[in-house]
Amino acid sequence: MLKGKHLIEPSDFTVNELEEIFTLADDIIQDPNKYLDACKGKLLATLFYEPSTRTRFSFEAAMLRLGGQVFGFSEASSSSVSKGESISDTIRVVGCYADIAVMRHPKEGAPKLASKYSDIPVINAGDGGHQHPTQTLTDLLTIRSYKKSFSNNVIGLCGDLKFGRTVHSLVKALSRYENIKFVFIAPPELKIPSYITEELTNHEFYQTSNLEEAIPELDILYMTRIQKERFFNEEEYLRLKGYYKLDHDKLNNAKDDMIILHPLPRVDEISPEIDNDKRAVYFNQAKYGMYVRMALILKLLGGDIIC
Amino acid sequence: MLKGKHLIEPSDFTVNELEEIFTLADDIIQDPNKYLDACKGKLLATLFYEPSTRTRFSFEAAMLRLGGQVFGFSEASSSSVSKGESISDTIRVVGCYADIAVMRHPKEGAPKLASKYSDIPVINAGDGGHQHPTQTLTDLLTIRSYKKSFSNNVIGLCGDLKFGRTVHSLVKALSRYENIKFVFIAPPELKIPSYITEELTNHEFYQTSNLEEAIPELDILYMTRIQKERFFNEEEYLRLKGYYKLDHDKLNNAKDDMIILHPLPRVDEISPEIDNDKRAVYFNQAKYGMYVRMALILKLLGGDIIC
Amino acid sequence: MLKGKHLIEPSDFTVNELEEIFTLADDIIQDPNKYLDACKGKLLATLFYEPSTRTRFSFEAAMLRLGGQVFGFSEASSSSVSKGESISDTIRVVGCYADIAVMRHPKEGAPKLASKYSDIPVINAGDGGHQHPTQTLTDLLTIRSYKKSFSNNVIGLCGDLKFGRTVHSLVKALSRYENIKFVFIAPPELKIPSYITEELTNHEFYQTSNLEEAIPELDILYMTRIQKERFFNEEEYLRLKGYYKLDHDKLNNAKDDMIILHPLPRVDEISPEIDNDKRAVYFNQAKYGMYVRMALILKLLGGDIIC
Repeated sequence: MLKGKHLIEPSDFTVNELEEIFTLADDIIQDPNKYLDACKGKLLATLFYEPSTRTRFSFEAAMLRLGGQVFGFSEASSSSVSKGESISDTIRVVGCYADIAVMRHPKEGAPKLASKYSDIPVINAGDGGHQHPTQTLTDLLTIRSYKKSFSNNVIGLCGDLKFGRTVHSLVKALSRYENIKFVFIAPPELKIPSYITEELTNHEFYQTSNLEEAIPELDILYMTRIQKERFFNEEEYLRLKGYYKLDHDKLNNAKDDMIILHPLPRVDEISPEIDNDKRAVYFNQAKYGMYVRMALILKLLGGDIIC
Repeated sequence: MLKGKHLIEPSDFTVNELEEIFTLADDIIQDPNKYLDACKGKLLATLFYEPSTRTRFSFEAAMLRLGGQVFGFSEASSSSVSKGESISDTIRVVGCYADIAVMRHPKEGAPKLASKYSDIPVINAGDGGHQHPTQTLTDLLTIRSYKKSFSNNVIGLCGDLKFGRTVHSLVKALSRYENIKFVFIAPPELKIPSYITEELTNHEFYQTSNLEEAIPELDILYMTRIQKERFFNEEEYLRLKGYYKLDHDKLNNAKDDMIILHPLPRVDEISPEIDNDKRAVYFNQAKYGMYVRMALILKLLGGDIIC
Repeated sequence: MLKGKHLIEPSDFTVNELEEIFTLADDIIQDPNKYLDACKGKLLATLFYEPSTRTRFSFEAAMLRLGGQVFGFSEASSSSVSKGESISDTIRVVGCYADIAVMRHPKEGAPKLASKYSDIPVINAGDGGHQHPTQTLTDLLTIRSYKKSFSNNVIGLCGDLKFGRTVHSLVKALSRYENIKFVFIAPPELKIPSYITEELTNHEFYQTSNLEEAIPELDILYMTRIQKERFFNEEEYLRLKGYYKLDHDKLNNAKDDMIILHPLPRVDEISPEIDNDKRAVYFNQAKYGMYVRMALILKLLGGDIIC
């Protein structure tokens, strides 16, 4: 029973609860018109203490497509924060107006704190470099939709594996399913932290810095941005940027049904020349992000329409 | 008949008109679902030349819960003001798009000026330190809901009584009802101005700086923030801050059915330790703020659904 | 068939397609209630990389009055742009969430670029000093509503004819209709560029700097702002500002059924003393702006309700 729950990190939900959400998302994708009034009379508050167009848009579109309504702020400057109000007071007041709230905050733990004082469900839409659980739900639904199952896949994760919270979160979430092999593809400076790999006791995995060598066996390739500011010198950054850039050449050696994911926005790590390749599903992934949020909101509000 | 009227200051409405609004608010609270489409097809413009999350949220939630829609801006920087347009032109253009408008403005009198040129009802959502009439309506509905009547109450107003516009406005509004005793609790630096007390010719009142002594006889305690910038020296501020802080100790001597109100946001003047005391109704007050705005909007638009 | 088309510049639509939009707008004006749910379940994204309250409001009100919903941003600072995302990626992601998008951008050509990558209709809401096609549609619908026909009119265009993009666009749009005489009224510093007049091969026109002499023969007078920053010295600016200011005196010599248009906001070029003259239709023009956008959105989405 998901009604009234908060979503602060992906592990707040059991595998069964996630399955409930994905099943509902499937049904929404099949027949979105059935859900046009599913949240009629319900209000979502979007509390973005830090701007994030993409994430905010996907939540707002999700609620609006359910027939619900939205109000909120898109940056802290236009909020009461300046008057010194605590997060716990803010969420209690917002709970007087809204039925469910989404919070993005630059400080780790802020959404968690809010949820403790909240009468309405709180969804974490990113707290600093910490958690971003609906991105993980998006990634999972995309994989599930294309691959039908989480199990029996080889997944390559490429780019900044050291700081990339979406990668850490996805690895942790996937490790709850059986028979997945992880390939961590990153330069030494940006390799996956050991506290992540140490938890992979029941899964095969290996690390490499060579995308071209790793690509042939992958069923899923999850690309992430390599950020300039992570490097000591620009030369090294420029060398690596090219080295990991996904293009036609590198794709030649990939499986026909491999899928390429990216949390977006991309900068240089995927060449636009492959955007029309059928394996490039990163824009569809954005669409799955909206559908999974529709299912999530509906579940937390206690609604459910599957005939 | 409230249809088409503006609300610039609380005295724009007669006691009977206020009663109309409160009666409608009662009915909305009883059965909000009856009002889900009450404002379908109607648009509210929120013109916030100065940010105010709480007030804006309560108006937007109110309109959305009536089935109406909302557009607007939340700070002047994203408005046409920069192009030098006059308030009178802005409201006439907004009147082409919207059915009703809410305006917050840093300058006293701006909403009044707008209302003179407007074809649609204009609600003042705060103009400088001047008026904030829907806060007063919120306070009144809260008192009426808990105490059933405005009359026959002793109300204590505590904190910054010199600059606090919500206090001035509430005192004036309550003075239209019979048999209310006012207790003004403030340090000498922040005592109530004489032009307020001079109008209380038909009401008992007294002034004190001692919250603990005053509290036992109160039916209603209205707390407000004491702002640091009002004091000449920090030492004095810190001493007084503690002196007026409402906590378990001070509440021990209060009546069992006293209610504690606060316009929010609070900073230090109410200890979170009393948040769960049943007398602490300041978060519910925020909810009454939404309901009273629902009733207000519906009345000004000429709608009315009470069977 | 307008369904799925983009609107980047006015000439993207044929005269017949424009007529389709105006006919639908007429019907909406006649009976707006018929369209209360015309866009139910549809989402408009408003992508304002540059603030523009008036234009954004008119689009949002249009969509909301059709029963559709709106999300977006009102200035670039709260968007993903800061993360270095390209316009082409942004529009593809927005296309996952929305059914139609409106874009204002400081750079010429940005909406055009977006439209090339977009799966959903893109409407240009102004790109730098370049195009602002829905202003032109607004001007045309206003003229058509008051004058019944575009042909057989003398139209005076007054003010900054050198830089004013709305004037250039309107002249080009009107030149597609027969028997219109253009009178260009401007100081020498701000006269209409020759590349505009050179295209008027089938129309009578003349240039003058004298508004008073020109006004008697006009059926339509289109006023625009004269901006201080266009002049070398302030003295010259102040002299001209008064010279072109429309007031009771100048109106005395105008036809009884002449109509005065202005894209707004106005600053000093129209005296408020004539606001109540029946020939002053510039505020109604703003209303036509909303109606024409309702018709436009509905057409691009493939909807159409005319019995």
